[in-house]
Amino acid sequence: MKEESNRMFTHKTLKRVRYGETDQMGFLYYGHYAMYYEIGRAEALRSLGYTYRALEESGIMMPVLEFKSKYIRPARYDNLITIVTILKELPANNRIIFNTELYNESKELLNFGETILAFINSNSRKTCEIPAYLLDLFKPYFN
Amino acid sequence: MKEESNRMFTHKTLKRVRYGETDQMGFLYYGHYAMYYEIGRAEALRSLGYTYRALEESGIMMPVLEFKSKYIRPARYDNLITIVTILKELPANNRIIFNTELYNESKELLNFGETILAFINSNSRKTCEIPAYLLDLFKPYFN
Amino acid sequence: MKEESNRMFTHKTLKRVRYGETDQMGFLYYGHYAMYYEIGRAEALRSLGYTYRALEESGIMMPVLEFKSKYIRPARYDNLITIVTILKELPANNRIIFNTELYNESKELLNFGETILAFINSNSRKTCEIPAYLLDLFKPYFN
Amino acid sequence: MKEESNRMFTHKTLKRVRYGETDQMGFLYYGHYAMYYEIGRAEALRSLGYTYRALEESGIMMPVLEFKSKYIRPARYDNLITIVTILKELPANNRIIFNTELYNESKELLNFGETILAFINSNSRKTCEIPAYLLDLFKPYFN
Repeated sequence: MKEESNRMFTHKTLKRVRYGETDQMGFLYYGHYAMYYEIGRAEALRSLGYTYRALEESGIMMPVLEFKSKYIRPARYDNLITIVTILKELPANNRIIFNTELYNESKELLNFGETILAFINSNSRKTCEIPAYLLDLFKPYFN
Repeated sequence: MKEESNRMFTHKTLKRVRYGETDQMGFLYYGHYAMYYEIGRAEALRSLGYTYRALEESGIMMPVLEFKSKYIRPARYDNLITIVTILKELPANNRIIFNTELYNESKELLNFGETILAFINSNSRKTCEIPAYLLDLFKPYFN
Repeated sequence: MKEESNRMFTHKTLKRVRYGETDQMGFLYYGHYAMYYEIGRAEALRSLGYTYRALEESGIMMPVLEFKSKYIRPARYDNLITIVTILKELPANNRIIFNTELYNESKELLNFGETILAFINSNSRKTCEIPAYLLDLFKPYFN
Repeated sequence: MKEESNRMFTHKTLKRVRYGETDQMGFLYYGHYAMYYEIGRAEALRSLGYTYRALEESGIMMPVLEFKSKYIRPARYDNLITIVTILKELPANNRIIFNTELYNESKELLNFGETILAFINSNSRKTCEIPAYLLDLFKPYFN
């Protein structure tokens, strides 16, 4: 049904595994996945016509509150990873929850996880609501 | 009670936040915590008279299966972080679960989380049991 | 003149500055430029129809012997950096010299430098000549 | 002779190579050496009773102008590296030049290099002289 297809926001972007990101097992080091998730979030926002940079310049910071990741299959040097960034629900309660899935060129799921970020007013350093213009960009995906 | 004090293994080590680990918010970047957890695990093992390096040279690899982290307060440049590494139960089912807590110089909890690692035979690339000599190092803490 | 235009090999690729790569000055941390140089080299090779990955799988490693970098202007968060990778002469003496230049969206030079890498036989761990098929890929640019 | 022993400033600190810093060659990735150099500089300053953090809070930033590094022998996982930080001459012309040498446990030289940093006034973003109190800390080593 149309309605169901419009109940989440999904975005895909690509990133190649670099030599400096591998470890001596020959795998993408487990600590680098957080950067892949960040890239997915930044490009998801850009695809909506906005940027995290503009958000920060407008006086909003988004520190991470929680990060979870499950490692299914290793990513290896030079793999071209598809980063899928998913918003399953509209942001509420001064925070936003992104789901991320990583796939290799064979469309095998390598890793998935969740990142929860707060909206913080840079001046007061207190949590705040998601800016209305940002919320409006997500709304069409959740009608 | 004696029994309770011997129902887990706890280890502490220190690491200073470096400039290259900060981000433009002035915080330790959320992706670097995985490395702090790794340092805690490696030093915990060393404190028992063994090393992860020796384990790997003996033919066992320990890839990460799952990583979770909650960010309570930001860590900042030059903070001397206490990394507390905790084993709440003896490894079983071909895996080991480490809990990690990070504190600043004022003993404030900054971050805590959990890492689950598998035991893998380097040759067969299949999961295997924890080596007996490694299990024996942990046993005295779980009588 | 045609002859002059064919006296070097030049390749361009893009990379965006990520949040985790900034430091608390708000600049791309000086230690991350080496990764940008690596990306430039890997993509330059790929543009010739070969990959560093295939080279390594064929039994050749290319450890870095020397790295130099001059920082002219800071790169900032979300800047889309053009990485220019230049080979000024054909590889000789078991090594290859890459020059790298980084530019921002305003075509301002941010950084430039040089990386010297050795050709090493993975088995013997001794230096060796550049493989003939790789040299052949570069030759048309140096007639 | 006494005079000669007092013509440079030298400081040593230790850092262990972590798993996330290795690459699939099994070596410390060439891009991580810049962080080792940074650690050496920060700890050298601390040994004199000052910190880079305090310097920055006082309104001085020290961006890197130039970085050079020669890789002699690979550093490997779990190696305990001695970082030697050397000042061969008193800072002048709004900049400071640090030399760095890295040794393994067998006292073999692994890597050496040079970092040139500017003194910048954080407000004006213009170069400035080294603060007098910082210069005074170095002077006893150059009588």
